[in-house]
Amino acid sequence: MKVVVLAGGVGGSRFLRGVRARLRQELPDGSGGTTAQLTAVVNTGDDLWLAGLRITPDLDTILYTLAGINDTDRGWGRVGDTERVSAELAEWGVGHPWFTLGDLDLAASIARTAWLREGIPLHEVATRLQARWPLGLRLLPATDDEVETHVVVDDPDHPGRRRELHFQEWWTRYRASLAARAFVQDCVDAAAPAPGVLEALADADVVLLAPSNPVVSIGTILGIPGLRDAVRATAAPVVGISPIIGGAVVRGMADACLTAIGVSTDAAAVARHYGRRSDDAVPGGGLLDGWLVDEVDAAGADALTRDGIRTRAVPLWLRDEASSAAVAAAALDLAAELARR
Amino acid sequence: MKVVVLAGGVGGSRFLRGVRARLRQELPDGSGGTTAQLTAVVNTGDDLWLAGLRITPDLDTILYTLAGINDTDRGWGRVGDTERVSAELAEWGVGHPWFTLGDLDLAASIARTAWLREGIPLHEVATRLQARWPLGLRLLPATDDEVETHVVVDDPDHPGRRRELHFQEWWTRYRASLAARAFVQDCVDAAAPAPGVLEALADADVVLLAPSNPVVSIGTILGIPGLRDAVRATAAPVVGISPIIGGAVVRGMADACLTAIGVSTDAAAVARHYGRRSDDAVPGGGLLDGWLVDEVDAAGADALTRDGIRTRAVPLWLRDEASSAAVAAAALDLAAELARR
Repeated sequence: MKVVVLAGGVGGSRFLRGVRARLRQELPDGSGGTTAQLTAVVNTGDDLWLAGLRITPDLDTILYTLAGINDTDRGWGRVGDTERVSAELAEWGVGHPWFTLGDLDLAASIARTAWLREGIPLHEVATRLQARWPLGLRLLPATDDEVETHVVVDDPDHPGRRRELHFQEWWTRYRASLAARAFVQDCVDAAAPAPGVLEALADADVVLLAPSNPVVSIGTILGIPGLRDAVRATAAPVVGISPIIGGAVVRGMADACLTAIGVSTDAAAVARHYGRRSDDAVPGGGLLDGWLVDEVDAAGADALTRDGIRTRAVPLWLRDEASSAAVAAAALDLAAELARR
Repeated sequence: MKVVVLAGGVGGSRFLRGVRARLRQELPDGSGGTTAQLTAVVNTGDDLWLAGLRITPDLDTILYTLAGINDTDRGWGRVGDTERVSAELAEWGVGHPWFTLGDLDLAASIARTAWLREGIPLHEVATRLQARWPLGLRLLPATDDEVETHVVVDDPDHPGRRRELHFQEWWTRYRASLAARAFVQDCVDAAAPAPGVLEALADADVVLLAPSNPVVSIGTILGIPGLRDAVRATAAPVVGISPIIGGAVVRGMADACLTAIGVSTDAAAVARHYGRRSDDAVPGGGLLDGWLVDEVDAAGADALTRDGIRTRAVPLWLRDEASSAAVAAAALDLAAELARR
């Protein structure tokens, strides 16, 4: 079985750990792995140049989490990391005071940047980096091209004027406190999905949308030309997992993003934003065959199902690997049911 | 008084520390500094790209030594440095196993590379880096252009064939054990002295050639188009300090370099290699008005003086700041004598 997951960083990595665990239970290969093929198509809109280095936060978060070397206390970076180089860079006035990287984390960025400067495309760089650990899945950037997410805000320094920030500055420096007026995928028109992405979607038996930010993670992936169409065109059922539980975001600040694009912070509203696959009224076309909501949102499930998105309510909190695996199991079960339809 | 020193890394930094100390004694400004202006024109032929970062060993060695933060035990890098990032880069297979950089050292290279990638020229980058400490002198790269020294050797893997290595590989990896057939300044024809270099030489009251490697440090500086002519054209006396004492190199492997260009490892032979300033028989033209040799080489001094290079024998070992200052004093005294001529 071939499973493709569209994923952002933190939520994506927790969900992917669950999918990997579930596939190992359900389709074991007899040596601790699985006969299934799991591919993650990862958001690159948060990527940035910092101190002359290319930083890819979502790819790294998933890599570190799936390798079991992530820092669970801080929620980013590598466990046991130090910040000797970053402190020194601050002395030189290089980089941003609001974006600190650990030494081991910086080493990965130095390696990545060295390879990129040699002309090696990002998907191949990602292959090299993940080869160090037996992840049990394939990480693919959504695109090799530099399509960075920018945020249009009211300029805090010049009332009445607007300003465009890199997503990381808005998210990390301002903690999404400046009201977002729009999200822009810089240079998106010239971009293409990374090699392997369209093939993975076409060959998939199941496509899952991780419970990541629907706007700046999943939305950014889908904004790469050709990618949304490939999700719509796959023969596989497409099942999404709500990142909203009981009208609140599980983690991060997705509500600030949803508000900016006029979508309520509500599990059903996000499903309608993605749209049912046959719905051409959704900009770019609808995507979902199935949708998982938390049990607290069960009341809206029937209406969604009637509207063509088969919706199931299950416990959605990704507290640990076991609970994540249970969510993955529910998503895969729903996909199997949709495939038999 | 304006003093300009042409300098390589280790020998250059020790000598410069002595010149700085001597000028503070001889021409004090009343607050611990000097009224004199000291400029070092520094070799950049050892510079290299490593792991996507621009490394400038001689500039850094002088910077760290003059700032008093160099590692005197290892002889390179910063005191108290760690190698956490380098160890991680080795895990990724990035960089060279024979060239390790400390974490603080790497931070300087990250900052430098970030600025260079922004289009800031190397001399301005050097200005930014040295601004952090009150060095009491100005460090100027000989050129902003990437003119890396290559070494032509007999290929150890293919007898009968020759191979061209980066100087750092020959020096650091092979410890100069492969017989050098020639030194090449890669891309030198298109290079120019960094802004400020020609001006400093034209305005100088004294020009000193540090006891650095005559071939791959001083020779590389002089190989930048226009630089040798500027040394020859300055109204200031030009005094060199022998890097050879008693027929042996003081440090490093300058003998391997001298042998390659057919010069004996001998204080007088190096002086004749530089040539007296009026000597047009030297390729590119001679440079020296004066020359310092160690007392063990006093026997050759008179012959050199008769040949037009006024030579003085003094203790030349740069053991500490005091002995370096004494050498600097002898060089400045000789220059003053030559200026009165």
